[in-house]
Amino acid sequence: MTVRIGMIGPGGMGQAHLDRIRTVIAGAEITGVSDIAPDNVRTVCEKYGVRGFDSSAELIASPDVDAVMICSYGPAHEADVIACIEAGKPVFCEKPLTPDAAGSLRIMEAEQKAGRRLVTVGFMRRFDRSYSEMKAILDSGEVGETLVIHNRHRNPGVPERYTWDMAINDTGIHEIDTMRWLTGEEIVRVRVDKPKKTTRRFEHLQDPLILIMETTSGIWMDDEIFVNNQHSYDIQCEAVAELGTIRLSDQHAVERTGVLGRHNVLTMDHNQRFGGAFVTEVQQWISAVACGEHTGSTSWDGYAAACVCDAGVRALESDTWVPVEMIDKPDFYA
Amino acid sequence: MTVRIGMIGPGGMGQAHLDRIRTVIAGAEITGVSDIAPDNVRTVCEKYGVRGFDSSAELIASPDVDAVMICSYGPAHEADVIACIEAGKPVFCEKPLTPDAAGSLRIMEAEQKAGRRLVTVGFMRRFDRSYSEMKAILDSGEVGETLVIHNRHRNPGVPERYTWDMAINDTGIHEIDTMRWLTGEEIVRVRVDKPKKTTRRFEHLQDPLILIMETTSGIWMDDEIFVNNQHSYDIQCEAVAELGTIRLSDQHAVERTGVLGRHNVLTMDHNQRFGGAFVTEVQQWISAVACGEHTGSTSWDGYAAACVCDAGVRALESDTWVPVEMIDKPDFYA
Amino acid sequence: MTVRIGMIGPGGMGQAHLDRIRTVIAGAEITGVSDIAPDNVRTVCEKYGVRGFDSSAELIASPDVDAVMICSYGPAHEADVIACIEAGKPVFCEKPLTPDAAGSLRIMEAEQKAGRRLVTVGFMRRFDRSYSEMKAILDSGEVGETLVIHNRHRNPGVPERYTWDMAINDTGIHEIDTMRWLTGEEIVRVRVDKPKKTTRRFEHLQDPLILIMETTSGIWMDDEIFVNNQHSYDIQCEAVAELGTIRLSDQHAVERTGVLGRHNVLTMDHNQRFGGAFVTEVQQWISAVACGEHTGSTSWDGYAAACVCDAGVRALESDTWVPVEMIDKPDFYA
Amino acid sequence: MTVRIGMIGPGGMGQAHLDRIRTVIAGAEITGVSDIAPDNVRTVCEKYGVRGFDSSAELIASPDVDAVMICSYGPAHEADVIACIEAGKPVFCEKPLTPDAAGSLRIMEAEQKAGRRLVTVGFMRRFDRSYSEMKAILDSGEVGETLVIHNRHRNPGVPERYTWDMAINDTGIHEIDTMRWLTGEEIVRVRVDKPKKTTRRFEHLQDPLILIMETTSGIWMDDEIFVNNQHSYDIQCEAVAELGTIRLSDQHAVERTGVLGRHNVLTMDHNQRFGGAFVTEVQQWISAVACGEHTGSTSWDGYAAACVCDAGVRALESDTWVPVEMIDKPDFYA
Repeated sequence: MTVRIGMIGPGGMGQAHLDRIRTVIAGAEITGVSDIAPDNVRTVCEKYGVRGFDSSAELIASPDVDAVMICSYGPAHEADVIACIEAGKPVFCEKPLTPDAAGSLRIMEAEQKAGRRLVTVGFMRRFDRSYSEMKAILDSGEVGETLVIHNRHRNPGVPERYTWDMAINDTGIHEIDTMRWLTGEEIVRVRVDKPKKTTRRFEHLQDPLILIMETTSGIWMDDEIFVNNQHSYDIQCEAVAELGTIRLSDQHAVERTGVLGRHNVLTMDHNQRFGGAFVTEVQQWISAVACGEHTGSTSWDGYAAACVCDAGVRALESDTWVPVEMIDKPDFYA
Repeated sequence: MTVRIGMIGPGGMGQAHLDRIRTVIAGAEITGVSDIAPDNVRTVCEKYGVRGFDSSAELIASPDVDAVMICSYGPAHEADVIACIEAGKPVFCEKPLTPDAAGSLRIMEAEQKAGRRLVTVGFMRRFDRSYSEMKAILDSGEVGETLVIHNRHRNPGVPERYTWDMAINDTGIHEIDTMRWLTGEEIVRVRVDKPKKTTRRFEHLQDPLILIMETTSGIWMDDEIFVNNQHSYDIQCEAVAELGTIRLSDQHAVERTGVLGRHNVLTMDHNQRFGGAFVTEVQQWISAVACGEHTGSTSWDGYAAACVCDAGVRALESDTWVPVEMIDKPDFYA
Repeated sequence: MTVRIGMIGPGGMGQAHLDRIRTVIAGAEITGVSDIAPDNVRTVCEKYGVRGFDSSAELIASPDVDAVMICSYGPAHEADVIACIEAGKPVFCEKPLTPDAAGSLRIMEAEQKAGRRLVTVGFMRRFDRSYSEMKAILDSGEVGETLVIHNRHRNPGVPERYTWDMAINDTGIHEIDTMRWLTGEEIVRVRVDKPKKTTRRFEHLQDPLILIMETTSGIWMDDEIFVNNQHSYDIQCEAVAELGTIRLSDQHAVERTGVLGRHNVLTMDHNQRFGGAFVTEVQQWISAVACGEHTGSTSWDGYAAACVCDAGVRALESDTWVPVEMIDKPDFYA
Repeated sequence: MTVRIGMIGPGGMGQAHLDRIRTVIAGAEITGVSDIAPDNVRTVCEKYGVRGFDSSAELIASPDVDAVMICSYGPAHEADVIACIEAGKPVFCEKPLTPDAAGSLRIMEAEQKAGRRLVTVGFMRRFDRSYSEMKAILDSGEVGETLVIHNRHRNPGVPERYTWDMAINDTGIHEIDTMRWLTGEEIVRVRVDKPKKTTRRFEHLQDPLILIMETTSGIWMDDEIFVNNQHSYDIQCEAVAELGTIRLSDQHAVERTGVLGRHNVLTMDHNQRFGGAFVTEVQQWISAVACGEHTGSTSWDGYAAACVCDAGVRALESDTWVPVEMIDKPDFYA
């Protein structure tokens, strides 16, 4: 069976998904796209030779669309995700599921009413080979209980419009989801420490900052978020367990030696570092849809990430721990 | 356009390709299979829900087959490849193209007569990310001329039936093709040095051995072939150029520290090490077929590898250099 | 000139120093030893063929002693260090200079009265090749301002008598001194986070713990102290600056591949990891003494470390930042 | 006991040894120096405050000299080494012991007549920590028999006066000695392969070249000698044994990441790479002399290296294996 995909909001990330589906993904074809910007619809339709829908509602309702990918602006997610649920169509929604926890709660309610898990949130790191291998080792029990996890999320630079809260909501959210997934636990409180700031970028930004998180069982996790390091997209993760530590490797394909010393070119953005993870993520979603199954992160994962982000943003203005407020996990997501 | 694939000889490697096409390759579907063993045809047809052809000839002739993959035993390749050429259908043939150079010559003649490149030989390392990155750096000119390349091809173990010449024809052939591709030059002479042999495996085998090759411009290349190293499938390559050296990294996704020290699990076979390369290889072939283009290694590459292997096998019995005998490259393959 | 050394309290560390002086240090000879345990004096005198003094006072006063090394129990340091100062003799005192800040203050007063820097505290990491190289890069200014430093101090295991405060006073003190030296700044506040504890060792201990420190200019530093990691003495340090990051390498002399994978034997204690640093530390001190100069860390460094440790121990019982209380730095130590 | 050293021929290497003895070596003092250039004697005497002897003979004969270091020009070694032997004084002679095997033979005869091992040849790599660790693992038997060893000896550049045979006699001689020491076997035949040469340096030189050696039991060893690689002094060694491989690590003290990527500064000469080995070599020699013992490589090692070099130089002009000619090892050196 070929899964027929409709895409809402094909911007940069969305078009990258369209390119993947056309060139390296099995079992899918693109039916059409919609966008609040009619110009963009026209451009994308021409480029990919697909149909343009006048609205997301029309796209979701189309009998030629089996499943929907949502790559639009965050605040627009909730209505379209709920429409997909009500139409009984699987939906892949880019992160964040919703900008705040309340919207995700409403999505969970709709999904529970539908009685079937239809929503997948686009947290691609769960599909990265190195993170997956780390999780497999931790899950195997061979290193005992996990006690501490150290993360680094570094970018070469961000534009001036990047605001303080985006360090949590757009950047740290990746570690928030990855830590929940790696440990299988919820995050119960967070703190933000504020180191000396870099002088090499916009004055308004506290950069770097350290997001500190604690899980239900007390696992302590830090995330150094430094979005103007001037040199590379550098993602690190080291899990310290009772009997051993596991860390992501440097991920270099080759090693060079020359007048610059022993040196390697670094990745500069998430597409370079997680290109393989994006392909696996979309492929697994397509394959699952074809079998009527669910894969990847759920609405609950989207909700939980939003709750931790809410606490993280409050922690930006605090010098101490901020508790994460969230409902008990519905059995539906157990 | 969906490319409809017929496969001849779906053994272990062939079924791995079928699995890839069904699960992670865009733009292809499997029409049917043929095999000299009717039982295997039945098994594969049931497993994949595809049609069984009574013979490779029937499969090649079928109007439901756009392109053919040949994964049968080496001596059977020639006839089927030529039949595909005569039918005007693109054909992907696993290595070796033919067991000796003469067969490959006949394939080239048929292909030139057809006037179009239809044959792709399955040298998957050309599609490996690390080798590709190495080639890009060498091709960029930033390190000057390549002078020396060191290779290691190590396997944990081989079965008792593995004979001396297989060290060249089955194992070393990968470096033979990769070196021609990396340097863009032909190999003009080879020698084989015979180190002290391991006592940890079958008495009949000279293992390890060192295959030494020289290209047209004098690039010197060695290949340590050690197929019973007891521990891992370990592929290494280091290119020494006038201004720098480039080597394949260790390819670890994670690094562990524990009671075993700082340690990493190693790859144990080519599927683990080159799994990604196989996917890229097949995807690029499918995509090229869909556009009426050629990709990957040609009949000439298959022929040249066979000529070097012939010299390599003669070098097993010699203590000096053995020249590689081959025809001049036809303009058709320029 | 050969510097004639008297040693007070030659236990394990002291005898290791004696061995160094006899076998790999230029310009020194051992005159004699003293110890509160007469049996130990006898044993050491026999082993090294040196004179035993009846008391540390007698040793310090001896005209055959040019300089003194103090390797006794911490609470005994103060009196002997002050006696050396009053005798005008250079003294190398193992860390901690004194168990609390008050004792170090009194030492500083005596030293200022003497009008000459005579005291060197045994913080050996300042002499380690890898830390020194890191400091040279940071000091060069090529990576801009330092913003964050991550440390790990891991031991395979500690004995049952190891108490919670020793994680600060005996273990973390090394990072406390190293961070002051690397950054050239004082530490102004500290906190201690308490992760989930390991179940693989004594129940009474909170292990691991995270010591967090902030300097005058706001550099944020963490130190994961995990003293029962079951596998290795693992010291890590990564400095994050505005334009680049520097971290200690893995320090392996060789890399092995075998049935355990790619693996390396780890260091198991400070002698293995910092053996070279100990030699350099003692050699530089001897060479400086011979020229009438001072080298290494001062009484002020010993005092400052004690002040930070005091705050760190208070932070063990707190869930927030604890300020470091210390006097202004006397001009004498500028 | 303090060993009183006389040095013959204090050029660059000799003065580096003098500096070590004065600053970081236990148990030695410098009595005086001699040199064929009176100006150099004057300069060195002033710099180190030592006595100048009018001739090497006078220095060797002096009752104030316990042991002699010879750092003069190779052809001058033989006479002075024999004079030391006849005077019964331990002598440390820089490599090569003599420029040809015949001279070393005469030294061995004198030494056997004296009835005591007095000669140590300055092959410093035997004292390098990484090589020593590799040897310890190979000697432990845990990886079975050694079968193959790969070496790289790369220099950033050599002066125009560097001739072809120096690639063997001055450069490759280090691997020749190290391979004999690592394997505990003699080298029985050698070959030199000549890759494409670099265009980035003097036209007269075949650079790089590959020295290939075989030991008594058949261990195969290569040494890529590339003395104008434009970027670094890069020494590599990988031993392939039946059950595992061991290689020298990259020896970096720190790892940097910045705008140049992940990069490290490389060593540029043997002093940077083997600085520690030089210290250990001289210290162990001094300590052995003080106890009346012998340490390090013997006259036999100097002789064997000269024999292999002789074969290597002949192999420069040959396209095949050249046997190494040497006498049977005298029992005296067993």
